[in-house]
Parts: sequence; C-alpha cells; structure tokens
Amino acid sequence: MHLLEGKKISETIQMKIASQITEQVAHFKRKPCLAVILVGSHGPSHIYVNHKIGACQKVGMISLKKELPETISEESLLHEIFLLNQDPAVDGILVQLPLPSHIDPLKVTYAISAEKDVDGFHPINLGKMFINDPTGFLPCTPLGIRTLFEYYEIKTQGKNLLVIGRSNIVGKPAATLFMQNHPFGNATVTVAHSHTKNLKTLCLSADILIVAIGQPNFLKAEMVKEGAVVIDVGTNQIKDLEKKSGKRLVGDVDFKEVQSKCSFITPVPGGVGPMTIAMLLQNTLTSYQRKRPQEKS
Amino acid sequence: MHLLEGKKISETIQMKIASQITEQVAHFKRKPCLAVILVGSHGPSHIYVNHKIGACQKVGMISLKKELPETISEESLLHEIFLLNQDPAVDGILVQLPLPSHIDPLKVTYAISAEKDVDGFHPINLGKMFINDPTGFLPCTPLGIRTLFEYYEIKTQGKNLLVIGRSNIVGKPAATLFMQNHPFGNATVTVAHSHTKNLKTLCLSADILIVAIGQPNFLKAEMVKEGAVVIDVGTNQIKDLEKKSGKRLVGDVDFKEVQSKCSFITPVPGGVGPMTIAMLLQNTLTSYQRKRPQEKS
Repeated sequence: MHLLEGKKISETIQMKIASQITEQVAHFKRKPCLAVILVGSHGPSHIYVNHKIGACQKVGMISLKKELPETISEESLLHEIFLLNQDPAVDGILVQLPLPSHIDPLKVTYAISAEKDVDGFHPINLGKMFINDPTGFLPCTPLGIRTLFEYYEIKTQGKNLLVIGRSNIVGKPAATLFMQNHPFGNATVTVAHSHTKNLKTLCLSADILIVAIGQPNFLKAEMVKEGAVVIDVGTNQIKDLEKKSGKRLVGDVDFKEVQSKCSFITPVPGGVGPMTIAMLLQNTLTSYQRKRPQEKS
Repeated sequence: MHLLEGKKISETIQMKIASQITEQVAHFKRKPCLAVILVGSHGPSHIYVNHKIGACQKVGMISLKKELPETISEESLLHEIFLLNQDPAVDGILVQLPLPSHIDPLKVTYAISAEKDVDGFHPINLGKMFINDPTGFLPCTPLGIRTLFEYYEIKTQGKNLLVIGRSNIVGKPAATLFMQNHPFGNATVTVAHSHTKNLKTLCLSADILIVAIGQPNFLKAEMVKEGAVVIDVGTNQIKDLEKKSGKRLVGDVDFKEVQSKCSFITPVPGGVGPMTIAMLLQNTLTSYQRKRPQEKS
C-alpha cells in the first residue's frame, strides 16, 4: 500500500506557484490576490479560511480576508462581492460555505464574477468543465484528485471508477472530469448515492473509489477490491477522549481496515484537503496570468 | 415488450403546446418564434431542419428559417446570431450542426444568447442543469428521454442506468439528468465509451440502457438483460437496396434481436427523434412564457 501524500504534493505545487509569482510580479507590478469572505462565526469555517489565507501568504499571494457579521443582509453581502468583482487588483473571490440560512447560496454563487470564481462553482465554469472548454476554472477538489493521480502516475483510462456522492462541488464534477477525454480521464465512471441499491457490489468492481458523502468511516474493507485506489474526500470530526481537544478528524473511509487492501490510499488529514488548497492557489494564479499585461515589444 | 412510442407522445405534447399558444397569444400580442439557421447544403441537416420547422407550424409557432451559404464567414454567421439575439420577437435560436470546417462550433454555441438557447447547448445552461437550477434550458434529447419515462411511468430511482456514449449533447447530459434528485432521476448511472473495457458485463447489469454512439445495430441481444428498458438515440442511414431510396434509417440498437428481451424499447425512427423535437418546441414555449408581460391588475 502506498500513501497518496496530498500534503507533500501540495507543498511541491505551492513551491512552483511561489516561484512563478516571483518571476512574474515584475511584469504585473502587483502580486496575485485572493479575497476570502467569511460570514458569521461557524467554527470549522474559520479554520478552513485560515488554512487558505496561510497558504496564500506562503506562496507570496495577497489575501484579503473579509469577516462579515452573521446578521449581514443578503443584499449587503452581494454588494461586497460586487465591489470585489470591480477591483482590478483582486484575482480570485471565494465565499466560505456554509452561509447563514437567510442568505441564498445560489445567489452568492452567481454574484461572483465567473472570471474570479477560483472555486469553480459558477454555472458558467461548471458548463465549461462539462464541454471540456479550458477557459474556465475547474472545481478545486476534483481537480486536486486528478492532480494527485498525475503526480503518482495512476492511470485511469478504461478503469472502473466509482464516485460515492453526487454533490455539486465534489461528486458530480469528479465524475465529469474522470469520464472525459484527458490523459488522466477516460475512466468508466459510475456515480452512487443514497438511492443506490447494490453499493457493495459496485464498490467491489471498482478499480478506483472516490468517497465524498460526509459519513465517518463509511467505507469498510469488505467493500474494497484487492489493489484498488481509494480517495477519501471526507473530513468528519468525531469524539476522541484520548485527544486534548476531545475530538479527531476522520474521513469517509475506515482507513485502518481499508489500507491493507489498497494499492494507493489518501490519508485524512493530509490527503485530498491540502490538494484542494493547492488547486485554489493554482486557479488564483491562472486568473492573475489571464490578465497578464502585454509585454512591450 | 412495449414500444416507447415517441412519435405518439410527441404528438400529445405538441397538442398541449398548441393549446397553450392559443390561450396565451392574446396576452403576448404575438406568437412564439423559433429561428433556425442552416449553413450550407448538408443533406440530412436539411431534413432535420424541415422537421423542426414543420413542427413549429403545426403548433402555431412562427419559424424563421435562415439559409446561409456554405462559404459564409464565421464573422457574418456570428452577426446573424447577434441580430436574432437582439430581436424581441424571437424566442429561440438554433444553429443546425454540423457546421462547415472553417467555422468554430464552440464560438457559435457561445454567441447564442443563453435566454434563447432552446437547444440547451450553451455552457451556462449546461451549468444550470448541472446544479439543478431550473432557470435554464435542458438539452432536448436527454429531456425527451426523461419525458418518455414520465409518460410511460418508468421508474428510474435506484435503477442501474448505463449510458453508452459521452457526447456533450446526449451522453453526458443524460447521465447528469438521471443521477440527480428528481422523480424520474435518482438512478445509479454509469457512462461507458470507447475506452470502456467490460462493456458487455456492464450492459448485462443495467436495468436501463441509453445508447448514443452512432454505430448502426451496435447493441446486440446478448448484451441486454431480460426485462431491461432500452433507449436508442442512434439515427444511422444504411444501404438497403430493397428501398426505393436505396437506404434505410436504423438505430444504435439491433432492434430485431433486442426487442424480445426488453420490457420497453424505443423504435428508430419514431422513438427518441420526435421527442427531441417536442422538447425543442417546449423549450421555445418556455422562453416565450418567461418573457410574458405582466397582466394588468
């Protein structure tokens, strides 16, 4: 069994991004900038946002953290986004989810300029992904998984790839990316979800499993074919009285049970999570480079 | 075995559309209008376009047929589309494919206003489909298949549904529609294509098969599970010296062989094709209704 060390690969990618920024900043006369909007005081969101902002600083990007009160009106939030859309010094905008219940997340998704939608959640970017038009932004988690496969040279062509979960931000776009014509695509993709009846059988015929359902330790050894590649997108906090904090992070895969059956597996933490952040930086850099001024001839 | 009589259902839908138009035309002070652009002299395209225009006339829609020469420049074609986008009396615009090789079909797809893209090919409409936002237009062929299932009350929830083919206009959107949360969705969807290795096994475990690869009589009886539902999207012309025309239309399914194993099957012609046209009219009517003027109170 080989660990897919997302953390290590993410650091390699971040070093490459940092060196590109160092090279290009003279032409742009400014650094790339990611704006992160955080509404309210949702605990895990603070942690995620701080990870993203920490990563920006590490690679030499500017990060603009906008902390807005839980009680902010939808209109005021949309206005904040409007201002960031207009700002030529901002390359990427993300609004950390979840949002308070009085705010429609779809309206927020649409409000972010597609050209700055480095999360890849805007329908125009999803539509571009769908038709394989490279001028958009791909959603960070599926792109991070594909990038892991590229680094570890895990071939997907003709493989049976099962995605468990059909969310808009992981399951469905992962299915789309891996079924398409691409050096690390061309898999035979199946998407399973809460209505799937024969999950164990499907799992056992999968060469590659991507699990993204948010249920701690859901995937057991008896559901995994010998030699399969297992990608764990889950990040679930569970109680653990042996830890000082009283809790522990686990994935959707029962790592202890499953690891011995896999050829490759992502750990949680340190697998898919850091790759998602690396892709967010990569998308922000891409946005910045798309605005690159013409060099004088 | 029951035939899925797309032609009959399409006529029922067209009658409903016709009566809605009759009711609503007084409020709008105009009829709905579909503009169809045909470039060059590709034989089958002429036939398809005439089918669409005939259907418009039958339901009381205006059709605007623009026949443009094979040699038209991309710029001039885009200008024609621009004029139709601007015209408030035009509700739907479609450009018949294929286009001559000097014209980029992607540019054409993007040029059509998303609000008039009744084919559902614009990335913003595909993105809306992807996130289940009902404000766009769904691609006509997958929508036509789902509508057939609704009319025949063929349940899809929890069923194994195999799509063979991964095109942007049939395979991928059909997969998306049938995996989503919808009374006629929630299937466990697999997408097979040219790189798929174990196609026969996949086919034999499918409760529902949607075949869209453009290969005459591809799906054989030995690939179909007893009692499966088979949807044939293919329309292939093959030689047939017994016919006056010397040719005959066949699907991607070997109908003669397969029919006895199915619970339901679409014929070719008269199955999916007429449903696609009905959905085109439905989308055009929807576009018209979205522009409905407010009634005076």
